[in-house]
Amino acid sequence: MSTKNPDAYSYLIKCLQVLPNVGPKTAQRMAHTLLQQNRDGAAELLMALDRALKQVNHCQSCNNFCEHEICHICADPKRDATRLMIVQMPADVPAMELARCHDGLYFVLMGQVSPTQNMDLDSIDLHKLVARLSGSPVVEIIIATSFTAEGDATAYILLELFKEQPYKISRLARGMPLGSELEYVDAGTLAQAVYERQLLNNT
Amino acid sequence: MSTKNPDAYSYLIKCLQVLPNVGPKTAQRMAHTLLQQNRDGAAELLMALDRALKQVNHCQSCNNFCEHEICHICADPKRDATRLMIVQMPADVPAMELARCHDGLYFVLMGQVSPTQNMDLDSIDLHKLVARLSGSPVVEIIIATSFTAEGDATAYILLELFKEQPYKISRLARGMPLGSELEYVDAGTLAQAVYERQLLNNT
Repeated sequence: MSTKNPDAYSYLIKCLQVLPNVGPKTAQRMAHTLLQQNRDGAAELLMALDRALKQVNHCQSCNNFCEHEICHICADPKRDATRLMIVQMPADVPAMELARCHDGLYFVLMGQVSPTQNMDLDSIDLHKLVARLSGSPVVEIIIATSFTAEGDATAYILLELFKEQPYKISRLARGMPLGSELEYVDAGTLAQAVYERQLLNNT
Repeated sequence: MSTKNPDAYSYLIKCLQVLPNVGPKTAQRMAHTLLQQNRDGAAELLMALDRALKQVNHCQSCNNFCEHEICHICADPKRDATRLMIVQMPADVPAMELARCHDGLYFVLMGQVSPTQNMDLDSIDLHKLVARLSGSPVVEIIIATSFTAEGDATAYILLELFKEQPYKISRLARGMPLGSELEYVDAGTLAQAVYERQLLNNT
């Protein structure tokens, strides 16, 4: 195991650190698991990653991860196309679907704006949202960002973006515990927060 | 994203859970990083994992991860083949090499025995160790397992294994770390350092 010219083992440890919150020590433990304890699992992970990189793209409509042009929710003619719920992450969609309180469509920002990082807008797909809305039948926009500093900042950015637009804009009710993230909230609380969503402008 | 027939995204999330301490939520965050924030890094990880699974095996002599039959340490004729240091994990070898205090060879157990899991011996490669020692010129065995409950249990197992053998067997000294100040050393270490105090004169 020369440290100058990295061998396959060291190279794997280096590459594993692309994962969030994984440093050298954790990567070492992961490499050990993959190569020593569970080679079958590692081979399956290899296949899954290969398949995901090849097949997973973004739904042209809602921006969620998707293997087709349009995801099954956006393709469903029974969904109410006049109401659009904007969420931060892919995981928020199944969480909301489980709550069975929103029969409109979604838009997934794929990130959030961070007030501690100069409100950098590159971390959310705003241009895709604008393109999604242009010429669409959307009347109501439900901002379903988390009730964290980042979620609040993201909601603020969205409100600014739609300031001059005729949409009815609301945000999830603060029936949700402060500091909580959407994907972790139980279905009942989530449903309540949707029913009591608060109007943010006067239209 | 149907939950019944997993798509490529859900399949990746499932397969990422082969990694140690990675549950569904962490896997979800990882998949998001790999597919949204860093596809280049994900592609590199894919390559690294593929290469590692194909190329990384075990050194026939020391059992460490290695891309050849014999690793560069075991192949080095300048190493003292009469002294064998037994360590738990691959990471222990470079750590010990950095200390420049052992010019013998190594054997990597690739695990440890856990006293809380019925001292299951399957987690260490004992049969490979026995094969390694049979007919070898080894005279001295240095047990360099960690000073944890698991490391102690592993050392005990090794000592039992070699009970009837003529090897000179030792374990790393316990005591105060170099450069440590007495007041900051934990009580257990301090007590051990007192019990195993070294005589400085010849009387």
